[in-house]
Amino acid sequence: MQDLLGNLFIISAPSGAGKSTLINALLTQHADMQLSVSHTTRSPRPGESDGVQYHFTDVTNFKQLIADKQFIEWAEVFGNYYGTSKAALADKLAQGIDVFLDIDWQGARQIKQQLPFVTSIFILPPSVQALEQRLNQRGQDSADVIAGRMAKARDEISHASEYDYWVVNDDLELALQQFSGIIQTQRLRQTKQAIRQQKLLAGLLANETK
Amino acid sequence: MQDLLGNLFIISAPSGAGKSTLINALLTQHADMQLSVSHTTRSPRPGESDGVQYHFTDVTNFKQLIADKQFIEWAEVFGNYYGTSKAALADKLAQGIDVFLDIDWQGARQIKQQLPFVTSIFILPPSVQALEQRLNQRGQDSADVIAGRMAKARDEISHASEYDYWVVNDDLELALQQFSGIIQTQRLRQTKQAIRQQKLLAGLLANETK
Repeated sequence: MQDLLGNLFIISAPSGAGKSTLINALLTQHADMQLSVSHTTRSPRPGESDGVQYHFTDVTNFKQLIADKQFIEWAEVFGNYYGTSKAALADKLAQGIDVFLDIDWQGARQIKQQLPFVTSIFILPPSVQALEQRLNQRGQDSADVIAGRMAKARDEISHASEYDYWVVNDDLELALQQFSGIIQTQRLRQTKQAIRQQKLLAGLLANETK
Repeated sequence: MQDLLGNLFIISAPSGAGKSTLINALLTQHADMQLSVSHTTRSPRPGESDGVQYHFTDVTNFKQLIADKQFIEWAEVFGNYYGTSKAALADKLAQGIDVFLDIDWQGARQIKQQLPFVTSIFILPPSVQALEQRLNQRGQDSADVIAGRMAKARDEISHASEYDYWVVNDDLELALQQFSGIIQTQRLRQTKQAIRQQKLLAGLLANETK
């Protein structure tokens, strides 16, 4: 896939960093952006509908899509398959729509290898204390359960250096403002502007004055 | 020079794109940023003082600095030498100060070869008409003089694709806001955040919970 007008953003974070809240707020603020809808073989949960939270499909079809190289990244998690379709992504980016991908470091790595123009953002919690508190919101989990969640969060955080930008989610307003700045800035990148400002540049470089 | 906490920004534009107005407004808005002060062998003009607009020096000293590889870029323009000192730049960046370099595409190219972490921004005028108008503000220049200025502007614009970001200076407020977004976004880059958030990351990755 070539670099298209739309921007592709990977957003990763350890559980407990406030990623969902941030993404939802961003989608509300930026009506022109969309969250990429993944394919999955798991069953819809109550309230979920096909094409909104996921494209629901069966294992046979999913494996055929893998064989046809239709996924830019896919993974099997607890017996269920999850994947991001190339065609759907390319279609949105070609239309100039900016797309968020909410994936973990493994998916991010697969995508960055194939689409070097992707912009990847890692969300960090503001402190160990805040992370522990968020991972134990119900306040009724055992120390072992919390330690397990912390270990998983630490594993994700250990890959933060593979991302382009880090946003520390301390103050939500500030984090949102930083995200918006990153989004706007990608739109000003030379590769994007060369498409958007093609006529202006051609006019400026035309060797005639009126 | 290694990548330091401060960000280095190259700003180039054809004459008539409104670069000086933009840079002055940015320096007013971002009190924590500085414009790099070049060395020059030309004489101070009325109102200019050493160390403010330029570091004024003589040709012998300037040539010695070249021989000692003290310049990150230098050029001879109409018999005068102009150059950017490595030491002064490294010192500011190490202190975490963001620095603007107001140079043309040739200086930009020299710097990008040596400091790949630099962020380069090209300012475009909004139209040929606006550019011509700005290049003929006094309204009393001959068609030949204006054509000459346009040719020079076109030469600079023909190198726009070598820059990281393009800002179209149509509405000054919007252009300023886009610049501020680019500046803030560079501060969120992984290489910068890894320095700024070093303690946070170490804390999050420490294998113990309280």
